[in-house]
Amino acid sequence: MFKKRENVTEVEEGKYLSPKFDKDGLIPVITMCSKTKEILMHGYMNEESLKKTIETKEVHYWSRSKKSIWHKGKTSGFIQKVDEIRIDDDQDSIWMNVDIGNGASCHVGYKSCFYRSIPLGNIKNVQELEMEFKENKKIFDPKKIYKDEPNPTKL
Amino acid sequence: MFKKRENVTEVEEGKYLSPKFDKDGLIPVITMCSKTKEILMHGYMNEESLKKTIETKEVHYWSRSKKSIWHKGKTSGFIQKVDEIRIDDDQDSIWMNVDIGNGASCHVGYKSCFYRSIPLGNIKNVQELEMEFKENKKIFDPKKIYKDEPNPTKL
Repeated sequence: MFKKRENVTEVEEGKYLSPKFDKDGLIPVITMCSKTKEILMHGYMNEESLKKTIETKEVHYWSRSKKSIWHKGKTSGFIQKVDEIRIDDDQDSIWMNVDIGNGASCHVGYKSCFYRSIPLGNIKNVQELEMEFKENKKIFDPKKIYKDEPNPTKL
Repeated sequence: MFKKRENVTEVEEGKYLSPKFDKDGLIPVITMCSKTKEILMHGYMNEESLKKTIETKEVHYWSRSKKSIWHKGKTSGFIQKVDEIRIDDDQDSIWMNVDIGNGASCHVGYKSCFYRSIPLGNIKNVQELEMEFKENKKIFDPKKIYKDEPNPTKL
């Protein structure tokens, strides 16, 4: 669909979009809240979902657990409106700025999926590396929103 | 090495770090400039590089092109000093805040790898989707810094 990747200089210094999808047909996506600059989530897109996102200005990921196009917010109501999409030097990852109003992004109920921070410095016991919660209040109750839908988190 | 992933609730709501590495043994990493909140790059870590990064507070990625631990900045001098590391709900991606001083992160010479933005809205010709450069001045000359090292960008 997108322009063929023909040489490294064009990919790095050129003006045309020619993204690289991995062996599963996916490209990783970093999603940032335009307003607060927090990272909301890390997801994946395939060619079709990237095209849909560009055209509709609403984020469509590829759900690896459901193996289908995932119009983010369709169940929860927390649509992600696209403010900007950037691509990196070798065009194999994407950074998006989105507007989620006063909503949330994380299926656990927090605003950002990245609600825990890892302690830095010498590790005493790698089996018990205790993290700190940076968000303490959930924005929504996942049981009410998702009801009987299976949890996407896999062990 | 890290705590075994035993149940979904512990992974999502627990305090212990038990990251998920993919079938290649890697976890994706989002790197943000602490000062400006720009995304600098998207990389990968394996278990050993994550542990080294936590302990040394300097970012060590896994280089997929060189298939080795990659102490970022060892060649260019642009070390990434870790201010914070966060992990997401299902513990399969990482967000880091780093200090790079007045340096750069991108091997092409720009500060951020994400120096081009993709136009939004209806696509007329997907083969000629013209991007806009958001950085116009390189911080360094890659030819001077990397000399004869092979370019990591792959088609």
